[in-house]
Amino acid sequence: MTRPAVILLSGGLDSTVCLAHALRQGFSAHALTIDYGQRHRVELEAAARVSRALGAAAHMVLPVPLTAWGGSALTSDESVPEHSGDSEQHIPATYVPARNTIFLSLALAWAETLEARDIFIGVNAIDYSGYPDCRPEYIAAFQNMAALATKAGVQGQAVTVHTPLITLTKAGIIRMGAGLGVDFSLTHSCYDPDAAGRPCGRCDSCALRLKGFREAGVADPLDYRNNDLR
Amino acid sequence: MTRPAVILLSGGLDSTVCLAHALRQGFSAHALTIDYGQRHRVELEAAARVSRALGAAAHMVLPVPLTAWGGSALTSDESVPEHSGDSEQHIPATYVPARNTIFLSLALAWAETLEARDIFIGVNAIDYSGYPDCRPEYIAAFQNMAALATKAGVQGQAVTVHTPLITLTKAGIIRMGAGLGVDFSLTHSCYDPDAAGRPCGRCDSCALRLKGFREAGVADPLDYRNNDLR
Repeated sequence: MTRPAVILLSGGLDSTVCLAHALRQGFSAHALTIDYGQRHRVELEAAARVSRALGAAAHMVLPVPLTAWGGSALTSDESVPEHSGDSEQHIPATYVPARNTIFLSLALAWAETLEARDIFIGVNAIDYSGYPDCRPEYIAAFQNMAALATKAGVQGQAVTVHTPLITLTKAGIIRMGAGLGVDFSLTHSCYDPDAAGRPCGRCDSCALRLKGFREAGVADPLDYRNNDLR
Repeated sequence: MTRPAVILLSGGLDSTVCLAHALRQGFSAHALTIDYGQRHRVELEAAARVSRALGAAAHMVLPVPLTAWGGSALTSDESVPEHSGDSEQHIPATYVPARNTIFLSLALAWAETLEARDIFIGVNAIDYSGYPDCRPEYIAAFQNMAALATKAGVQGQAVTVHTPLITLTKAGIIRMGAGLGVDFSLTHSCYDPDAAGRPCGRCDSCALRLKGFREAGVADPLDYRNNDLR
């Protein structure tokens, strides 16, 4: 029997590569998508598409209304800033309070139910270092807490939180994905897609993605609203 | 201006006493109830009643469908065992995977949005020691993780997780609540209430509550289905 693992899957480039990596490692992948009231529903569609295409054993979409208290440009009516998160000190306005902590906690619950001892999350400390909950020291602290939190942990079956992308640049993640045969046309990265779901090519996330593809020397198959950006 | 704090409130005895304690300490209490698909909706009604009666500044009920993956007698169709959690080694079947981790993560998100630095949770390591996520070492690990997880934490405004009941017996909690003037008739503890919301008096939670009231020498104002139990 293949070992089960829970993989957090947004449908973006990073989590898709992370899922491909877990599958290549031989895990029976249980993909978990949190529907936290993102403004771009197209992200949820991408997650379903990716999980089907890559062959996850299960895909769960869990509604958790983090919009209830606002606090981020990704879930409230604030406009999305263009290029706000470039510097190491600056925390982007697209930061969602405690997002990865909530996501990992939900993954931990599902993992315990599945008797899975492995969780994968596609966080990255390099290109997005403005988010405190993407850093290795945060992941280590979460794993330490998780070992004390659960029945399985207490019984010596603590969970490992795998972060295969944490030290990679965006270009490195794209090269890794290309090596794993990921079809990047399935993924979605834009913070501000149009009604048809087409990416803007201008927001933080698009800019980072486009730069990554350029640096990796791989063509981005997405159809941008501004095609000269590719 | 009074300082805001987030208080996890189930509507049970412990979280009600915890809320009364936070209010007495002068906090502006933001009560957070997680609707995780409990079988007893009467718990949610108790939480709303308690939060109004005690004077919380806000009460939020957040739906998080932890029933999605089952794994506990509290959220699935398994029957509720009678007296399953008495021993220190034994983990009760009413254990919900990663429940306090998920609840505290959501409290952390709301706290950051409110710029609150204080979270209260009515966990108790004495009478319910079967739950791993009620122990002081778990709370310490969560707090350590939280300091690394959030923008506020990184900026030196880490959150404190208060557990005023953690070393109290149930009788001690009842005495504390009585001292704070808590109206215990507002609270709900039963895992298996009847259609009218009346407690059974026989499940783990009722048994523990009744024993606590007896030991504290305080009358439990609840209307049990079996009145000889009081």
